[in-house]
Amino acid sequence: MIVKPISAAVTAALTVATPAATQQARHWTLEDQLSIPEVGGLSISADGHSAFYVVRVADVASRRMVAVLRRVELESGATRDILRAQWIDQLHRIPGEDAWSARIDKGDGVQLYRIEMDDSITPLIVHPATAIFGDTEGAVYPGYGHAPLATGVRAHDWSPDGKRLFYVVLDAAPQATGVRHGEDVVIERARRRAPGTATASIYLRSEGRDTLIATRPNNDITTFFERNFVRWTSDAVLFNVTDVDPEGRSRVVTMAWSFAAKTARVLDTLAESAQAIGPLGGQLSSEGYGDRRELVEAMTGGARHSYGHLPFALDGRAASGVRSADGKRSIVGVRMLDNPRFGLIVLEPGRLRTIGGAFSLNDCDFTISLSKGACIAQSQTQPPAIAEIDVVSGRIRPVASVSPRHERLSSLRVEPRTWTNRHGNKATGYIIWPRRYVAGQRYPAIVITHGTDADERFANRENQWEYPAQLFAERGYVVLLINEPSARENAEVWAARLAWRNETKAVAPETMRQLIWLNGVASYEDAVMELVGTGVIDQARVGIAGYSRGSQMVNVTITNSSLFRAASSGDGGYLEPAFYPDVSGSYDAVFGGPPTDPVALMHYRRLSPSLRADKVCGAVLQQVAAPLVPSIDFHTALRKAGVPAELSLYPGDDAASDETHIFHIPSNRLGAMQENIAWFDYWLLGERDPNSPYADRYTVWDKMRDEAPRHCGTPLPLKN
Amino acid sequence: MIVKPISAAVTAALTVATPAATQQARHWTLEDQLSIPEVGGLSISADGHSAFYVVRVADVASRRMVAVLRRVELESGATRDILRAQWIDQLHRIPGEDAWSARIDKGDGVQLYRIEMDDSITPLIVHPATAIFGDTEGAVYPGYGHAPLATGVRAHDWSPDGKRLFYVVLDAAPQATGVRHGEDVVIERARRRAPGTATASIYLRSEGRDTLIATRPNNDITTFFERNFVRWTSDAVLFNVTDVDPEGRSRVVTMAWSFAAKTARVLDTLAESAQAIGPLGGQLSSEGYGDRRELVEAMTGGARHSYGHLPFALDGRAASGVRSADGKRSIVGVRMLDNPRFGLIVLEPGRLRTIGGAFSLNDCDFTISLSKGACIAQSQTQPPAIAEIDVVSGRIRPVASVSPRHERLSSLRVEPRTWTNRHGNKATGYIIWPRRYVAGQRYPAIVITHGTDADERFANRENQWEYPAQLFAERGYVVLLINEPSARENAEVWAARLAWRNETKAVAPETMRQLIWLNGVASYEDAVMELVGTGVIDQARVGIAGYSRGSQMVNVTITNSSLFRAASSGDGGYLEPAFYPDVSGSYDAVFGGPPTDPVALMHYRRLSPSLRADKVCGAVLQQVAAPLVPSIDFHTALRKAGVPAELSLYPGDDAASDETHIFHIPSNRLGAMQENIAWFDYWLLGERDPNSPYADRYTVWDKMRDEAPRHCGTPLPLKN
Repeated sequence: MIVKPISAAVTAALTVATPAATQQARHWTLEDQLSIPEVGGLSISADGHSAFYVVRVADVASRRMVAVLRRVELESGATRDILRAQWIDQLHRIPGEDAWSARIDKGDGVQLYRIEMDDSITPLIVHPATAIFGDTEGAVYPGYGHAPLATGVRAHDWSPDGKRLFYVVLDAAPQATGVRHGEDVVIERARRRAPGTATASIYLRSEGRDTLIATRPNNDITTFFERNFVRWTSDAVLFNVTDVDPEGRSRVVTMAWSFAAKTARVLDTLAESAQAIGPLGGQLSSEGYGDRRELVEAMTGGARHSYGHLPFALDGRAASGVRSADGKRSIVGVRMLDNPRFGLIVLEPGRLRTIGGAFSLNDCDFTISLSKGACIAQSQTQPPAIAEIDVVSGRIRPVASVSPRHERLSSLRVEPRTWTNRHGNKATGYIIWPRRYVAGQRYPAIVITHGTDADERFANRENQWEYPAQLFAERGYVVLLINEPSARENAEVWAARLAWRNETKAVAPETMRQLIWLNGVASYEDAVMELVGTGVIDQARVGIAGYSRGSQMVNVTITNSSLFRAASSGDGGYLEPAFYPDVSGSYDAVFGGPPTDPVALMHYRRLSPSLRADKVCGAVLQQVAAPLVPSIDFHTALRKAGVPAELSLYPGDDAASDETHIFHIPSNRLGAMQENIAWFDYWLLGERDPNSPYADRYTVWDKMRDEAPRHCGTPLPLKN
Repeated sequence: MIVKPISAAVTAALTVATPAATQQARHWTLEDQLSIPEVGGLSISADGHSAFYVVRVADVASRRMVAVLRRVELESGATRDILRAQWIDQLHRIPGEDAWSARIDKGDGVQLYRIEMDDSITPLIVHPATAIFGDTEGAVYPGYGHAPLATGVRAHDWSPDGKRLFYVVLDAAPQATGVRHGEDVVIERARRRAPGTATASIYLRSEGRDTLIATRPNNDITTFFERNFVRWTSDAVLFNVTDVDPEGRSRVVTMAWSFAAKTARVLDTLAESAQAIGPLGGQLSSEGYGDRRELVEAMTGGARHSYGHLPFALDGRAASGVRSADGKRSIVGVRMLDNPRFGLIVLEPGRLRTIGGAFSLNDCDFTISLSKGACIAQSQTQPPAIAEIDVVSGRIRPVASVSPRHERLSSLRVEPRTWTNRHGNKATGYIIWPRRYVAGQRYPAIVITHGTDADERFANRENQWEYPAQLFAERGYVVLLINEPSARENAEVWAARLAWRNETKAVAPETMRQLIWLNGVASYEDAVMELVGTGVIDQARVGIAGYSRGSQMVNVTITNSSLFRAASSGDGGYLEPAFYPDVSGSYDAVFGGPPTDPVALMHYRRLSPSLRADKVCGAVLQQVAAPLVPSIDFHTALRKAGVPAELSLYPGDDAASDETHIFHIPSNRLGAMQENIAWFDYWLLGERDPNSPYADRYTVWDKMRDEAPRHCGTPLPLKN
């Protein structure tokens, strides 16, 4: 099955918006990989005529990622850059006004600004004291793919009438200079950089007056990370916070600030998020296993309404749910189970409709009446574009491209697949075919895996990280983007997932190993072997790559399978024994206990990559954002076993900072992609490029190759 | 046996030099503990009339340790401060001149200066490029008890005629900003701070010209740390360097720079150090076991001369050896085996004489003819003083006090002891009696241990660290300074030590555990129980403290003995499983392999403190200079077992630096001593001082005490 090309209507619309698309289509380059835009939010005007959106993109010249605020006219598609800044997020329409608010860092920290329809930008809240989010000394929390970010305003939320503003500002404590004790020291085991602390002050602005309604400590992760899940009633604002008791036990509670009494109290029950509330006022969820999932609305009191067994599920990556003011219509983002793409469902009493098609709809926003909206539309081959949504008719009208540069690329052939492995478990994913694929000829192949992020998004970095999948296909590799087998395959698999997630010992370590890790190895192997069987892939030239969750899978795969000749593992080290004290609950669930427990040690010896280094038949590259112990241990074990291995540390913004888990420094991103190309070309094809910036590593790799004591013979899948 | 008070002659001489000593004697205070001077070198004039010496002392006002260069007239004892600076060391007389050279940091890095008899100080070598030694980001090597030290000149050495100067300057590489690979990343596992690198350039200055004779890389530890062991012949300068091959194997070689040929070559054999050469030209060593050691001079070719079995041994902490120009006289520093104190032996063909008495002689220097010298003289009760040595007569004439402040202290009663434990192994040490000891009354006690550093030096920080032993005695504790049992007790113990030191598996792990660690526990217990038996110590109020090697012993003791009710363990974590990859050779020798080897794990479970946390009967304080993983793991295990435990991290000079293993920040030193006082007073005496800076910890300690699940009953020594 080949994915359908984007509709003629889309192409036509984009052509209108981007005249450059009429130029001759061209092939992918490294610069195309580097400049894939990340959409960071979209918000439409009350009248539905225009929208603002934010993209982040690498600015190679400034060696930074930059955020761009754009305005698009939904009728014409005309698009203007309004602002380029270090950071822009939390873009919200101000209810009742033709104006927006957003957090922006113009150089004096992340502050709150007001954006008018005339494009003027003025400060709303400027809190100069700030606290740092990022992977740097003194940061209060780590960063996620961005440079150290001085943060004055952490979060904000408007009341539905636009008259009240809930906002959170941060004050970093002065760098601790005194003696620290106990848990304040223990915390550093898991942190490479000495952490700072800050206090969060929560304010309510109303009628021009600011009232401090709560002060929260640094360990309140709901306030510092999750923006408090703010909800408004007619007489109070409700917000969640995390309370941590002296024993370190934490619980999330909902607080209510009464407008009349001007006091805050803790509610007896946790108020629900408005994000997945159905038209009956109940909490929506997707239940069951397999290819179809039951959409259920559960009401307070226990009543339960089923919308039937459907080929999609609710998903945190889908568009945020919204509910109309009268409560009669809910729009909820969903993800298709087969060929994973994001769409919308419209729920009205007794009625369910879907909106969506061949491409994904994410980052949606709707008018108050929920009659009209705009989304980011994209697919494996369609770069992100703005699409207008008519909710009543379900019509999707493409408006303008987010990335004209990528519209000019000649699409690669990308084929969605669902593979069923030897255990009967299904995994979804995509085959990206080599540009000049000729049937009957065998090609080298690279598997890329990262949890379940292989879906109909365009060259999604959350999935492919710094593995330039499209460029690999241009260079003649068959690229397989393979999701891990479905966690909802059946009750047994799901029980293992739950035990892992909830950190219980409900499932035996050997079962965990089989269902969570070796099950995935089987999927990768079987997907490759199917294409070996059909004459597409050369079995002797297969590699595998993945970061984070993918790095676990790569490390487990290369230490259990002899099919892969080269691996690239990105910034991960989970499953290594040395990591135990930092993730003890998780490891107790996986291994049954610490590695110093003789019974648990048996399970570590079966699964921990560094303890299986002598089983490896391929060359292993690890690219890391910080010199973390587990990655170092795996590398050391590989080298001790004579396995060709490279450990490459990408530097931070300065000596006191590290690169982030999702790389944010353009030169590192470029370097990491170039290193992956050099690595796979060398180990799979035997090719070397004297112009590669990594050419000076060839002599090191030559030596490791020549000295490797182990020869695994014909690459073979795991016997299991 | 009570140690003899210092001789009347010494007291008289010091009285001359320090009129303040006539003031009324007073008792120890915290400020006295903090201001104990460390002598950093001594050098006398060619005519033997005067000497320069260096002391380091805490300057509380500037929050730093400061170095003071002093000049003392040996006849009168008149002493003058010549210079106060951040750093002063390598004080050398320039041969053939009435002048000295020394490394001094006046604020522009450590550079080489010339010091005249008129006290003027002028630059000899100023190399502005510098590289950092210290526990800070970008340092090329760690520090040892000092603030990060920018180092321009690393080492220097004068030819015997004073006409040539060998010196080493450092150039730090710019902070690495690129991607790093392999071993350059692995090295960070063992380093908390990202290391920098530097190149060392070795120069020869002669007739006003400087010639570059070698360039050495950062991994040449002999150049960067050991000052090259420079020796001079008539036509070459010989110096050692360490070569590291690409596999990481290192070897020390001697290089010779020919003055005539102006070329350097590597010698076939390692040239010997001049430090322990006898009058026959052979290498001196102390052989055998037990109370007397055979002093042997081994000549090239295999001939061997014995000076007999003597009650002392050569020792790295004793005065450096010197040999007269005609080779007929050698003076060598030695250490007495019983009541360890340092003295000198004079070796002439067929003759051996000793110089020394009740106190130790360290940091000596002699005239060229070796007829006259000066040393630092001190004992457990005698503060450091300058003493003149007449080599021919052996007479020692005290000249001037190094620390008049400490002369005014009323001496505590300090009794040297040799204890024989239940296994028949001997350990030396001292009892410091409570100031107002009354026979028949039982006292609380604290054991302080640090390898073999309990000897006749004055409140030596290398031994007692931030455990204020003298103040404990003032406050009513019996303090036992106990060395670990002699490594030279017998061949079996020595074999275990050798296996440990040389990282071999020659001795079984269980034997290592018994002979190296439990043997020491037995010594501490038996020493305490002897004083319990004689009615001196209250068995229910005994604590133990030690840093570094002592912290190992404290951690092993508290997890094996139920005799101790409180422990203070300083900046150590050796024996913890998590440390394995950083010290794998050492742990292989101790445990037989890594903790992930099931057979070796059995041995870890018997010895690693964190794996025996549930055996602990006392409260455990760890004071650390950095949040290192092993200390955190031990703390976490103790708390998990419900053991009252405190982990206190003392801060560095700034956010990018750590305190050093030997604390160098006066406020940290003061704080650590105050915390130890609060800790032992609380856990041993049940006392709390509302004025202690640690008073806010009492509620934490109360809670840990009340919640501790384990009650060990009567404190009892280990059954063994």
